[in-house]
Amino acid sequence: MKICSTEKITDYKHLNLVSVEYRDKFDAGKTWIYASRGNPCRPDAVVVVPFHVREDKLVLIREFRVPLGGFQYGFPAGLVDMGEDVETAGKRELFEETGLGVTRVLRQSPPIFSSSGMTDESICLLYVECEGEPGTEHNEASEDIEVVLLSRTEAGNLLDQQVSPDLQPDLLFDVKSWIILERFASTGRVL
Amino acid sequence: MKICSTEKITDYKHLNLVSVEYRDKFDAGKTWIYASRGNPCRPDAVVVVPFHVREDKLVLIREFRVPLGGFQYGFPAGLVDMGEDVETAGKRELFEETGLGVTRVLRQSPPIFSSSGMTDESICLLYVECEGEPGTEHNEASEDIEVVLLSRTEAGNLLDQQVSPDLQPDLLFDVKSWIILERFASTGRVL
Repeated sequence: MKICSTEKITDYKHLNLVSVEYRDKFDAGKTWIYASRGNPCRPDAVVVVPFHVREDKLVLIREFRVPLGGFQYGFPAGLVDMGEDVETAGKRELFEETGLGVTRVLRQSPPIFSSSGMTDESICLLYVECEGEPGTEHNEASEDIEVVLLSRTEAGNLLDQQVSPDLQPDLLFDVKSWIILERFASTGRVL
Repeated sequence: MKICSTEKITDYKHLNLVSVEYRDKFDAGKTWIYASRGNPCRPDAVVVVPFHVREDKLVLIREFRVPLGGFQYGFPAGLVDMGEDVETAGKRELFEETGLGVTRVLRQSPPIFSSSGMTDESICLLYVECEGEPGTEHNEASEDIEVVLLSRTEAGNLLDQQVSPDLQPDLLFDVKSWIILERFASTGRVL
């Protein structure tokens, strides 16, 4: 496989399509189109996995996602600003979206890729312990968020409710939150 | 939040941008652009988490991903064909990409969303037990794949190698594979 050329084929502010000319393993010329935020740095975003120690609960948010036209369960997350480090971005996003404060960083993943057949988007997972009272008064105008704290039992019950998002359009899950919730429900741990 | 209108603003075969006009929680008019495969059904794709029982190892693939311009560790995966069910698609993709056969389906997730800020793409995870000799003779021309079987110890060693994909451009991880490998390395289990 060999990349021959890469061209941005749309010109929007936050997301664009990129066309790649490449040669496959039989040296045939092919084209692949993917979506990109156009960020020269990795990662694009930070996804915070927050554990509220005093409550002994995992923190999720239930957030309206425009591309899904409905509310989705996921972790607090956001783009990493230019020049900002992942830990600072994660603490900022956790506070803005949930009102909670980080007391300890448990682990930071390297940049890992969301869905590399269709996008070059990468994120870092930031596993943290946190404290405080949940609140959404620091949300941005584009954010419509409910903070959800889940015990191990509540995590299992929530997962068991969702059979199909077509039947339950307001019970949608982000892939990262589903996998980590499943581990939390099964084992009581996220790491 | 209220969706007012949705318009496909590019016209490519496999992936397009969609523009959504919506009203935020203060009733201000806003636009959001996201990428879509344009599939009316959920999920778009199946991601197989295969455990090779005889070898006592987790199966991953190391695959060239055009949008990343390099090789990435991930699970066998592919689009679900029109009218195909998730389990059939998962068994087909596992065989095509690795030569291995499913002996037991352990769990199928509901459709869950890859990165809902930028795409409506959804996938189902299909956790399976499998058997056979790994081989790539059934790969398609666009696929450049190496099958990788990892013990619990090998999974931990692989994760420890990657600090930053900018430093190690051929040691990239898909987000799902990183989270599940981390669990496997820590606990010896994927479910």
